[in-house]
Amino acid sequence: MKVGIIGLGRMGSAIARRLIKAGHDVTVYNRTRSRAEPLAAEGAVIADRPAGASAGEATITMLADDDAVEAVVLGDNGVLQGLPKDAVHISMSTITVALCEKLAAAHRVGGQRYLAAPVFGRPDAAAAGKLFIVAGGEADVIAGCQPLFDAVGQKTFVIGDTPPWANLVKLGGNFLIASMIESLGEAVALMRKSGVDPHRFIDIMTGSLFAAPVYRTYGELIVEERFQPPGFAMPLGLKDIRSVLAAAESQRVPMPAASLVRDHFISGIARGGEGLDWSALSRVAALDAGLGHEH
Amino acid sequence: MKVGIIGLGRMGSAIARRLIKAGHDVTVYNRTRSRAEPLAAEGAVIADRPAGASAGEATITMLADDDAVEAVVLGDNGVLQGLPKDAVHISMSTITVALCEKLAAAHRVGGQRYLAAPVFGRPDAAAAGKLFIVAGGEADVIAGCQPLFDAVGQKTFVIGDTPPWANLVKLGGNFLIASMIESLGEAVALMRKSGVDPHRFIDIMTGSLFAAPVYRTYGELIVEERFQPPGFAMPLGLKDIRSVLAAAESQRVPMPAASLVRDHFISGIARGGEGLDWSALSRVAALDAGLGHEH
Amino acid sequence: MKVGIIGLGRMGSAIARRLIKAGHDVTVYNRTRSRAEPLAAEGAVIADRPAGASAGEATITMLADDDAVEAVVLGDNGVLQGLPKDAVHISMSTITVALCEKLAAAHRVGGQRYLAAPVFGRPDAAAAGKLFIVAGGEADVIAGCQPLFDAVGQKTFVIGDTPPWANLVKLGGNFLIASMIESLGEAVALMRKSGVDPHRFIDIMTGSLFAAPVYRTYGELIVEERFQPPGFAMPLGLKDIRSVLAAAESQRVPMPAASLVRDHFISGIARGGEGLDWSALSRVAALDAGLGHEH
Amino acid sequence: MKVGIIGLGRMGSAIARRLIKAGHDVTVYNRTRSRAEPLAAEGAVIADRPAGASAGEATITMLADDDAVEAVVLGDNGVLQGLPKDAVHISMSTITVALCEKLAAAHRVGGQRYLAAPVFGRPDAAAAGKLFIVAGGEADVIAGCQPLFDAVGQKTFVIGDTPPWANLVKLGGNFLIASMIESLGEAVALMRKSGVDPHRFIDIMTGSLFAAPVYRTYGELIVEERFQPPGFAMPLGLKDIRSVLAAAESQRVPMPAASLVRDHFISGIARGGEGLDWSALSRVAALDAGLGHEH
Repeated sequence: MKVGIIGLGRMGSAIARRLIKAGHDVTVYNRTRSRAEPLAAEGAVIADRPAGASAGEATITMLADDDAVEAVVLGDNGVLQGLPKDAVHISMSTITVALCEKLAAAHRVGGQRYLAAPVFGRPDAAAAGKLFIVAGGEADVIAGCQPLFDAVGQKTFVIGDTPPWANLVKLGGNFLIASMIESLGEAVALMRKSGVDPHRFIDIMTGSLFAAPVYRTYGELIVEERFQPPGFAMPLGLKDIRSVLAAAESQRVPMPAASLVRDHFISGIARGGEGLDWSALSRVAALDAGLGHEH
Repeated sequence: MKVGIIGLGRMGSAIARRLIKAGHDVTVYNRTRSRAEPLAAEGAVIADRPAGASAGEATITMLADDDAVEAVVLGDNGVLQGLPKDAVHISMSTITVALCEKLAAAHRVGGQRYLAAPVFGRPDAAAAGKLFIVAGGEADVIAGCQPLFDAVGQKTFVIGDTPPWANLVKLGGNFLIASMIESLGEAVALMRKSGVDPHRFIDIMTGSLFAAPVYRTYGELIVEERFQPPGFAMPLGLKDIRSVLAAAESQRVPMPAASLVRDHFISGIARGGEGLDWSALSRVAALDAGLGHEH
Repeated sequence: MKVGIIGLGRMGSAIARRLIKAGHDVTVYNRTRSRAEPLAAEGAVIADRPAGASAGEATITMLADDDAVEAVVLGDNGVLQGLPKDAVHISMSTITVALCEKLAAAHRVGGQRYLAAPVFGRPDAAAAGKLFIVAGGEADVIAGCQPLFDAVGQKTFVIGDTPPWANLVKLGGNFLIASMIESLGEAVALMRKSGVDPHRFIDIMTGSLFAAPVYRTYGELIVEERFQPPGFAMPLGLKDIRSVLAAAESQRVPMPAASLVRDHFISGIARGGEGLDWSALSRVAALDAGLGHEH
Repeated sequence: MKVGIIGLGRMGSAIARRLIKAGHDVTVYNRTRSRAEPLAAEGAVIADRPAGASAGEATITMLADDDAVEAVVLGDNGVLQGLPKDAVHISMSTITVALCEKLAAAHRVGGQRYLAAPVFGRPDAAAAGKLFIVAGGEADVIAGCQPLFDAVGQKTFVIGDTPPWANLVKLGGNFLIASMIESLGEAVALMRKSGVDPHRFIDIMTGSLFAAPVYRTYGELIVEERFQPPGFAMPLGLKDIRSVLAAAESQRVPMPAASLVRDHFISGIARGGEGLDWSALSRVAALDAGLGHEH
């Protein structure tokens, strides 16, 4: 397929690379052009504007936050202007439900298609084609994009014809991870102060009840206090929890566990954690118990 | 081995049955004698007092709470009086760290051995010999009891020579489950009020990030609101979280996620949930969002 | 002084009436013109546009939320367009710090003055000239507006030359009230379920430690469950707490008591409290304890 | 009256002194006898055992916690043994509802009278006869003790004939103070990081909405970070909140604001606050916002 990719951070670059390898005809755009150049060497065309990367059958956006997506889609020479009628904009970024609704409406007016297709997985999963994709939008449009999803993901979950549902599922998943980190952090602080080897505690948990890779991965990061370099930084975690809480407030759903996680992300950032991985949420639990030192 | 089993609730009975089948010489005691009779038919001897079930090499206690364990061990004609020198008391109940320390001290004075060996798993896991056992105590004593553990469990985790550590790990594990239920409950309430099919949400979560049986089991209970009959009732969940918080307070570890779960157990019980499974913690999240009706 | 008043809800109307009585030359504007007519009978001139009420030395805005203030100030024929150079816009609404900064910047560009002057007090206090005013802005501008403040308030607190500080103090005060309501609600639920007469509890508290009218007023509303008609409705309470949390997040200050109050406002609204006074925050504490019935 | 006083900490000594001055016939007891000696110089008789200070018409106990009260009342040569039939034990300590019930039952069996009469006020208020007393017990017994209450308090609130109600009201009041400290601490942290003078913030609050001495007193302690010497130390604050939560759990009342305060007391103690005044609860809010340094 002829496909554009906008946003060449670690995730976007990995996705572009997978699509090139799978034989698709790839055009890329990034605000800072230098990040696009390695991909040109591998076969991608570099566009100068978002609209220039939006001339194919599908355009993928993979950016850090609402502001970046909104600028690239609705701004001058943006995706909305460049995308042909009936072509599809696949939004893979983790954005708010509110922005998702706004983009869907704008593309409807523009006679274009819109899919929300946020993903679970870190950049190494993207590079290995092992992402999980949650796709929301019209069934035939999703089906048409399946070759793209197959190039980057191990599985595509279709959530239905309402794009914001995909964002909600993605945000819900990130909330579950963050609250798991919070709980692990508190439990590990208790083990430490009680004299129990925290490695052993994590081994037992992941060897019995919680035999999921996500518990093992985060359990190790927490026990070893390995918060750098950040796979997903604390301010991004805070942003996602803020999005969950905004969606929940608009539906009149109190989420006290999310509020707790939000308070701790803020505290963690205030206490020197701006550049740490979001697993450093557990550092707040440790500091609050008098373990370790503020940065 | 010649072994006694005190406490014949669903867990204790399943354990007794496994030990009989494995060829051990089993004596049982239960306050209400009628619960012991089916086991007599299968080959167990019934004792009239806890001390009478404590005359072998090992005595297992499996009871509901601290008060029950304390009465049976330290009371008249209790385990402490009945247990021979060098024989071992294996405490499998989920009790507080404080009581565990008290029992260990009492047996030390009595010249007896003491193991804390709480388990993860519901009664059906016990019946299938699929429990996970966390054992704390002297290594040779644990090794000597391994045939008993092998009869009921799929794996024994040795946590070290300090019995209360085993209780702490067990309590920590139950805290992780309870906070997972809380988070799932909040997320499911959000999905419901947003129009997302909650079954689909759980399918996606357990088919991607959280591929652990514990997420699938509780996810289904929550979405289907199947809270009866209780596998583990709310007041028992509350008791365990209270024990976690007591251990944490004594070590000066704040655990706000545990406090949140505690408040919600209390609220759930206050609102008609006394007899429901602890997964009904999610019902509090639903009610607080205006979903469903109080009992 | 020649002064305009925009926004004729219960607060704005009471303020307008006080200023007319004090002999000021008053022009009023309200989106729904009918609310302005009683004031015309008392001597006010009615304007057809916000700009029309902004031709004097000072223009007061007193509106429900950020959106209303932004529309009236920055919209077509708004205050920004109507206000003469060196005249002053006095923003008395409870708005966010972010909007306050935006308005201050816009007026600076327009060569106009800007004061933030939010107030404490309900409409009856405004009618009696008993408001407390928190004024932020240049000292000479505040001094020049003192005759207006004296007409409606019993005291003006000058917070300094930075307008958003006044909003922050106002939001901080509303947070203190809301968290007091939360605490009183929890304590009253405990007294009720324990058999202690809650009226007596409030009498003792306000007759000893908490001899402040705000405790007596809210204590009575809570104990008598007198939540209608709303003096200040729950959604407005939620809005203010959301503004506090937004300001705190931008400064990296976790405010868990504010998060708790936010969750309970959301829950209260979800459970039929949309039209109740914000003291009905206490109804959430009662319902969560199994007292009373959902609406 | 012939009256005994057991427990000569700062509160107990001040009470003894007031009673001596008022002309009562005072016998005192303290575990560490040296604390009793200054009172002997002022006219008190020193007893060697609690029972020795319990031979009069009334005996007051004023001790730090449940354990101390239980030992002195129910122990060998305790109040229960020494108190004549129909004489009254006035328990002024802040104890749990559970212990209050136990003491009331013990004295009933002993043919003695029992009043719960906890007080609000710091030692300087006791010295000035300005305490507030909350009295629970039989009306005629309270009336008979009124001369004693008048010597130390400015007002006696009779809560009814059920002694534990008095303890509950006292605990409820301490909960309201602690949650006020928490809220003030969070608001002050927000003001500080936003550049608003926190003294000014407290001045405005106590000069308008919150014109109660308790807000002024704690507001100043918080802003000036004057946490030493402790008027009422953090571990005592934690103890009282623990008692509130225990009473609330037994009545099935969730109190999330109390849980929050509990977590913060624990964190404050873990981070070097063991010896600080309970107003240092606000220090936790400051540290969590990245202000100041751990001890």
